[in-house]
Amino acid sequence: MASNDLIINADRLVRRIKELAEYGATPEGGVNRIAFSEEDVEARRYVMSLMGHGGLNVRVDPVGNIFGRREGSLADTGTILFGSHIDTVPNGGAYDGVLGVLAALEVAQTLTEGGYRSRHPLEVVVWRDEENGLTGSRGYVGEISAADLDQTGPDGIRLAEQISRVGGETTRINEVAAEKDSITAYLELHVEQGSVLHTEGIDVGVVEGFVGISHYDVTLSGIPNHAGTTPMNRRSNALLSAAELVLAVDRIVKETPGDQVGTVGAFNISPGVPNVIPGEVTLTVELRDLDTDKLAPIWERIHSELEEISRRHGTTFTTELRQSVEGSLTDPNVRGVISEAAARLGLATRAMPSGAGHDAQKLTQICPTGMIFVPSVDGISHSPKEYTDPKDVASGCRVLMDSILAIDQW
Amino acid sequence: MASNDLIINADRLVRRIKELAEYGATPEGGVNRIAFSEEDVEARRYVMSLMGHGGLNVRVDPVGNIFGRREGSLADTGTILFGSHIDTVPNGGAYDGVLGVLAALEVAQTLTEGGYRSRHPLEVVVWRDEENGLTGSRGYVGEISAADLDQTGPDGIRLAEQISRVGGETTRINEVAAEKDSITAYLELHVEQGSVLHTEGIDVGVVEGFVGISHYDVTLSGIPNHAGTTPMNRRSNALLSAAELVLAVDRIVKETPGDQVGTVGAFNISPGVPNVIPGEVTLTVELRDLDTDKLAPIWERIHSELEEISRRHGTTFTTELRQSVEGSLTDPNVRGVISEAAARLGLATRAMPSGAGHDAQKLTQICPTGMIFVPSVDGISHSPKEYTDPKDVASGCRVLMDSILAIDQW
Repeated sequence: MASNDLIINADRLVRRIKELAEYGATPEGGVNRIAFSEEDVEARRYVMSLMGHGGLNVRVDPVGNIFGRREGSLADTGTILFGSHIDTVPNGGAYDGVLGVLAALEVAQTLTEGGYRSRHPLEVVVWRDEENGLTGSRGYVGEISAADLDQTGPDGIRLAEQISRVGGETTRINEVAAEKDSITAYLELHVEQGSVLHTEGIDVGVVEGFVGISHYDVTLSGIPNHAGTTPMNRRSNALLSAAELVLAVDRIVKETPGDQVGTVGAFNISPGVPNVIPGEVTLTVELRDLDTDKLAPIWERIHSELEEISRRHGTTFTTELRQSVEGSLTDPNVRGVISEAAARLGLATRAMPSGAGHDAQKLTQICPTGMIFVPSVDGISHSPKEYTDPKDVASGCRVLMDSILAIDQW
Repeated sequence: MASNDLIINADRLVRRIKELAEYGATPEGGVNRIAFSEEDVEARRYVMSLMGHGGLNVRVDPVGNIFGRREGSLADTGTILFGSHIDTVPNGGAYDGVLGVLAALEVAQTLTEGGYRSRHPLEVVVWRDEENGLTGSRGYVGEISAADLDQTGPDGIRLAEQISRVGGETTRINEVAAEKDSITAYLELHVEQGSVLHTEGIDVGVVEGFVGISHYDVTLSGIPNHAGTTPMNRRSNALLSAAELVLAVDRIVKETPGDQVGTVGAFNISPGVPNVIPGEVTLTVELRDLDTDKLAPIWERIHSELEEISRRHGTTFTTELRQSVEGSLTDPNVRGVISEAAARLGLATRAMPSGAGHDAQKLTQICPTGMIFVPSVDGISHSPKEYTDPKDVASGCRVLMDSILAIDQW
């Protein structure tokens, strides 16, 4: 490996993160760069110009993903693909996917400046619209159909129109999916968006996989009635049942051995005024674990406890599985490459699941995939307060480069 | 007493309830007649025309209350006042205050038609704007100041403007309050708006008093964080604390001996999305009892339990007393008159507190006051489904008339 001659320019990388944060900067110090917005379109232009500096040939695929390609010396070999996304949540942070994109560009530029000729073709990718459902990576693995293009987003605009706006050609949507053997490996660097690395003082997380998610909608119904004239023993109060359910979800998830999490995150009551007994509560129960098969038995325990709660309070309920995402694992060889690269650089690592969704989880379906986490200060993400120390930004970029160089020898 | 010669026309009363329900009728079969609305103004005109039929002289006082007066034979004696209100909540029911107003008119018309000459002057009253804070009766007991007139309502219009619209003269607001000794008694007939009479099969409720209300706003704060990346043991979840508080309010109120009620009716969580741990919950705790002094000790128990809950969950909280209404009692002599009148008519009665607020609670401040309840089917009120059986409508009206005739002998 030639990594001793190849030194990333950490200052340049940190400066570019700041520059990219100007596209959609908010008064609170955050970044508002929703996919397909004007700010997003301009930020994509900026990133494409950086690709030129890195010696990359730019193309936009039919779904709107941006690729910057550098050919390798071997014919008929797979591409090493690496990158992330630059769209943000409303008033999000400056690091999120941006770190992975700009670190990928920094790696490509460092290799070009260092005169490194790779064996495999290298491609830096900027995935289209990660935050609103992994649109770009889903397209890349063949999951976006013509019917999906007709769906409208939260802004009421059809996906096909959005994609056309950023240079994608939806009439060629059937050409977007990558050939299954065309990719040697996919690598993504990302901030953890959790507090584990920061709290434990560890430099690098080696992601084992992406958690499966089961998201249920629950509606609890009682009888709305006058809070002054209805005696305590004649009430059918949906909020009492809902409160017991909230506590039951927390208790059951904690009692189950393992790292699964469970959250009631949305919670709406009706009519919701001080002097009326709540007649209806709608809430969400979301369960996550690396092992998707663990989720159903946990839900069954919650459901049977909910039956008991409702009986006790004289309320009724309905439940509906709203979203189900299968968990997926990263590639053991790629994990090994990342761990060894970090060790050579003198960095402490730990294996960990990704509790959040990432484009990398889609890539696991078509190629060996690895993901590198660096610490988020206090675990804060999707917030103007999102921050990762420049030292960790540089470490993550070095691990990414050394991992690519190692895989280039495959 | 001459009650054997005086027979109310129950059919006429029931027909007029239906007629008045046309003013603001909703597609759901309810009534939308918000105080000061066009529908309210027209309904007031209809009621004033009925007052003429009943042989009453009509006047509107500076706050917009309507009075229909019939002089008595005695000089220098107090007036017997009786009535209720005709404004409704949004999409409310046809009975609520309407029954009390139209029954009062039926009594007056029956006395006129029967040639009954009362000793005391009699006045039928239609209180202004009961639903939005007892505006008319508060004015009548001297609680509306010039400053109150400058307050804007939910529709953004100043109270003074609203009152001018219905013929009140706010420049004479200081003339609205009744002289303390000018009223011999106030009587109000109303539907129960609760399920006690209907469930127990009792004809008439004799109201003992009006409950005091303490309404607290509570804010519980934790740390909003990613529901996927934050381990269960690193969460500060405001919803867990709120759920425990909801159950504690219910338990403590039920454990305390007596008829008090306690309700968490409003409940809002933030950010309120499935994949974020709730960072903040705001909710209301409302306590009611006839004996206002009982409420503070109950709140103290709730507050100290809230401290313990917050400690356990690593959350913080603030509380604020938002509204405090003193309980008030009806007059024992008037209660006696009502009970005896009902007994003579062969009706079953029970004494009961009013869990809801009524204009009568304001009148307790200036004169002997009594209130008569008749059953609400299934306890439903403030709803298009609000219904009281014609038999109970007639019984309530007869008890009202016989009580007035008895008090006329004072």
